[in-house]
Amino acid sequence: MRLSRGFWQTYKEVPADAEIPSHRLMIRAGLVHKSGAGLYNYLPMGYRTIRKIEQIVREEMDRADAHELLMTVVTPGELWQESGRWASMGGEMLKFKDKAERDLCISPTNEESVTDIFRKTVKSYKELPLTLYQINTKFRDEIRPRFGLMRGREFTMKDAYSFHMDKKCLDEVYQQLYRAYERIFQRMGLNFSVVEADAGAMGTSDSQTHEFQVLAQTGEDELIYCETTNYAANIEKAVTYRADQVGSELSSEMEEVKTPAMQTIDDVCQFLKCPTNESLKSLVYKSVTGDKEDFHLVLLIGDDQLNELKLKNYLACDHLLAATDNEISQLGLVKGFVGPARLESKINILFDQAVNTERAYVVGGNKVDVHLKNFSPKRDMEQFTPVDLRLARANDLGPDKKSHVVIKRGIEVGHIFQLGDKYTKALDVKILDQNGKTKAPLMGCYGIGITRVAAAAIEQNHDEKGIIWPMALAPYHIHLIHIGKSSENRERVEKFYETLCEQGHEVIFDDRNAGPGFKFKDAELLGLPIQVVLGDRDFDKDQMLEIRIRRTGEVLKVSSEELVVKVKEVLDGLS
Amino acid sequence: MRLSRGFWQTYKEVPADAEIPSHRLMIRAGLVHKSGAGLYNYLPMGYRTIRKIEQIVREEMDRADAHELLMTVVTPGELWQESGRWASMGGEMLKFKDKAERDLCISPTNEESVTDIFRKTVKSYKELPLTLYQINTKFRDEIRPRFGLMRGREFTMKDAYSFHMDKKCLDEVYQQLYRAYERIFQRMGLNFSVVEADAGAMGTSDSQTHEFQVLAQTGEDELIYCETTNYAANIEKAVTYRADQVGSELSSEMEEVKTPAMQTIDDVCQFLKCPTNESLKSLVYKSVTGDKEDFHLVLLIGDDQLNELKLKNYLACDHLLAATDNEISQLGLVKGFVGPARLESKINILFDQAVNTERAYVVGGNKVDVHLKNFSPKRDMEQFTPVDLRLARANDLGPDKKSHVVIKRGIEVGHIFQLGDKYTKALDVKILDQNGKTKAPLMGCYGIGITRVAAAAIEQNHDEKGIIWPMALAPYHIHLIHIGKSSENRERVEKFYETLCEQGHEVIFDDRNAGPGFKFKDAELLGLPIQVVLGDRDFDKDQMLEIRIRRTGEVLKVSSEELVVKVKEVLDGLS
Repeated sequence: MRLSRGFWQTYKEVPADAEIPSHRLMIRAGLVHKSGAGLYNYLPMGYRTIRKIEQIVREEMDRADAHELLMTVVTPGELWQESGRWASMGGEMLKFKDKAERDLCISPTNEESVTDIFRKTVKSYKELPLTLYQINTKFRDEIRPRFGLMRGREFTMKDAYSFHMDKKCLDEVYQQLYRAYERIFQRMGLNFSVVEADAGAMGTSDSQTHEFQVLAQTGEDELIYCETTNYAANIEKAVTYRADQVGSELSSEMEEVKTPAMQTIDDVCQFLKCPTNESLKSLVYKSVTGDKEDFHLVLLIGDDQLNELKLKNYLACDHLLAATDNEISQLGLVKGFVGPARLESKINILFDQAVNTERAYVVGGNKVDVHLKNFSPKRDMEQFTPVDLRLARANDLGPDKKSHVVIKRGIEVGHIFQLGDKYTKALDVKILDQNGKTKAPLMGCYGIGITRVAAAAIEQNHDEKGIIWPMALAPYHIHLIHIGKSSENRERVEKFYETLCEQGHEVIFDDRNAGPGFKFKDAELLGLPIQVVLGDRDFDKDQMLEIRIRRTGEVLKVSSEELVVKVKEVLDGLS
Repeated sequence: MRLSRGFWQTYKEVPADAEIPSHRLMIRAGLVHKSGAGLYNYLPMGYRTIRKIEQIVREEMDRADAHELLMTVVTPGELWQESGRWASMGGEMLKFKDKAERDLCISPTNEESVTDIFRKTVKSYKELPLTLYQINTKFRDEIRPRFGLMRGREFTMKDAYSFHMDKKCLDEVYQQLYRAYERIFQRMGLNFSVVEADAGAMGTSDSQTHEFQVLAQTGEDELIYCETTNYAANIEKAVTYRADQVGSELSSEMEEVKTPAMQTIDDVCQFLKCPTNESLKSLVYKSVTGDKEDFHLVLLIGDDQLNELKLKNYLACDHLLAATDNEISQLGLVKGFVGPARLESKINILFDQAVNTERAYVVGGNKVDVHLKNFSPKRDMEQFTPVDLRLARANDLGPDKKSHVVIKRGIEVGHIFQLGDKYTKALDVKILDQNGKTKAPLMGCYGIGITRVAAAAIEQNHDEKGIIWPMALAPYHIHLIHIGKSSENRERVEKFYETLCEQGHEVIFDDRNAGPGFKFKDAELLGLPIQVVLGDRDFDKDQMLEIRIRRTGEVLKVSSEELVVKVKEVLDGLS
């Protein structure tokens, strides 16, 4: 494309709401254009990348025997009412009524639609397994849309759904799609990692779920890695072990100590001159399921944090909330001095499994300004339940309880999930099995955030000058630049442009009437893999052009004759 | 694709709401699946056709120097408020509020969005002309969605918008896109026609607009053709001339005649023994513009029909309504006996230009049970305005006033339109021209109903057995069928399948365990261009296979050796 005739320009201004590099760079490099809060138009340069992402995903999904279809963006409320999600999806689903007062929504996800197609089509186990997918627009009405494409409200997603008669078949297809996902992100040239994810309270103990994470310092997600054991998990899901000995040696009986006005565990430990890992913090939570409310006292080592998701999954409740001051008082507890011993109120007590229940700890005394020393769960409690509730940390021990883990940051671009029969049961899908009995099939679902991949690729691949596109996602491959005013050289560059295009390369030719600084800045910002530069001054001296590699900054001098061969060689090396 | 592993099946049931062939056939041939009123999911077989349509459109738009982008499906209400269309778009635009109580809508069209992109990007005349396009989901909340994809609520559209500094440039690009559209529908193999369309009251006298109509007996639109003069127009827009002499010779004065209880023009003419083309019918209409209401008396030859759109455009009003009985009384007129003569009320009188104002007619007498004979406009009226208001008819005369016109039926699949500066002015777009003065650019807009093309192609190409796909739109090209149980022959067909696929053909292999009747019925219904059949009985006799051409029913006998060459030959002939 000749820039003089293209619809592309860069911007100097960084939008005030652009907090992360990909957001800033996509706007500045003229890839997207904001249309409203969380709504982005894809300009021609940005849309080329989106279509390349779609094409890679499409090819690998087809290779994995998935069938592409297209479901409606607007879906009837009835289907969601049938599955029971019309109420539970909450505010992120945009609901409205049409002229005939029928309930409609813009699909944030398509389990209902695809299961409806399935039940109207498939009758026998012989037709399974079956995987269907689409690449389509989704909408989630985020309260606070931010980070540009990373948390936009409207976005493009590839969502796939598989159907199976049994768990073995589900596992096989799940593995097949796992491998397809690996190929997809490898082909895109992204540094990514597959981690175990949280299956939520819905997942049964044997339902697998994995996230595909593009590694980037700016990533929203924390990922736990143990290289020795090859363990990788989202921090929400990770099970690790403390590397230190916790609690103090059990010597004497519990003993009250005055801790006036000391409400944080750090204050208390400092005052009592005890390490925080010899104390327990007591947290009060309320779980809500339907009309039922329950209160729970959660005990963790003083310097550990609660992983609320683990607690919520363990309790299998609809909602989980920290108890209010009021609720704490009503339970007969004293805020800041809550503890597990000498409790009068009936409350469910949970100990994190990191607590060595045979050793002693400082805990709240359940009286104003009082803590207890030498509390030991096994000795001082009638009963308690140890559960894994703590948030994993860097330097914890991995699954082998020997090797240490590290934390990396990532951006979730893919998620695969074994759904079980939740939706097929809800929508009353019945398939005849080999024995002529009807059964609700099992499902898997498999998502990739197409537009999010573009943002994640930039988060991972950029420098202070701009984007550094991986070959597979770059809108074009070659940024051809003529510096100078020689009409003879200009014609040379025109010919290079035509030759390179004929060779099948995707070339931008900056034929605009502008200075070298302007052209180079634009080229660095857009970040195509290579720049080919003919500068009048150098060329007239030694008849040489330059090939500049965006990622390394390397500059190769080549003659006119070598150019085409060398360009191909360099690009092949970058693919 | 092997049907045993594909996700495709046909249906015997015709949905009760399927009134037209394309709707019935798309459901029966397993191309689409209804998700709700006016909402259709594209099943894998149907989606292949949609993607082929998209690809042809994309290639020709790119060739016409248009740049592809993607605008959001959900757009902010602000933009529509700025253009003034938030109120005027009416009920077909699906409007709603998000969680933050911001106005949003699902775009039925994108003039506002594209003009917003334009004004944030383009500053100088040097960047023009510019054409931008997208292929995207649209939604129109039709009161009565029907005809399947033909009048669905959610649909895919290609919409393009061009920007220009002057009318000359707009005309040039308009011509370029006109030709691109011709190539698009030619490449699709459709029998289509380009007709002049109605520009509405918005269009200035020199603003062009054309419709691309796929010809089909079931088409909703009536099209007027004059072959001699090469004139083609939508009936709404067509200007034709009556082929007969109207009115009677002017001989005597106006004369009252009693016409008791005869309220229709036919009754009156029969009673008075005068031909209907010697009578005038009088219609009373109300025009509304803002708060202003006006009444109009429209006179047409007795057997002509009013073209309401012509009247509305002439009056340049917001709404046009037939006057109610009440309003007719209030005007002092007598329903059934309204006429232009001896009028007491002040009303705007319009004569259709087909009325020969020097001849005489029977007209209403403005009294109960009374008509007037020998009314002659020029003699008996103080003043009147002749306007083209009649609906064109078959056998009318064309622009040369000599050749007769015919009527054909069509389905509108494309529409190109010169918008002028309506949107650039409304959104306050200012571009510097060559003299450094700012100017609101002119726009053109260019739509193609992608999903509608699929339906229109079927309306034009089907028979009682099913669809007859044109090559370019067929989901696959070859339907390979093995009839019989010979495992030796089955292996032969497997090899043909692989060879044909390797040659780049798009092949369906019906390897299902089913009888010949079932397989042939499915093949005829789906309607791929050719079927390749190996029947055990015939093959074991003479070692010959059959190539069946779906459109003509022709059957070619070929040997195994000839097959691949012959298939290519036949398909090339169909392309």
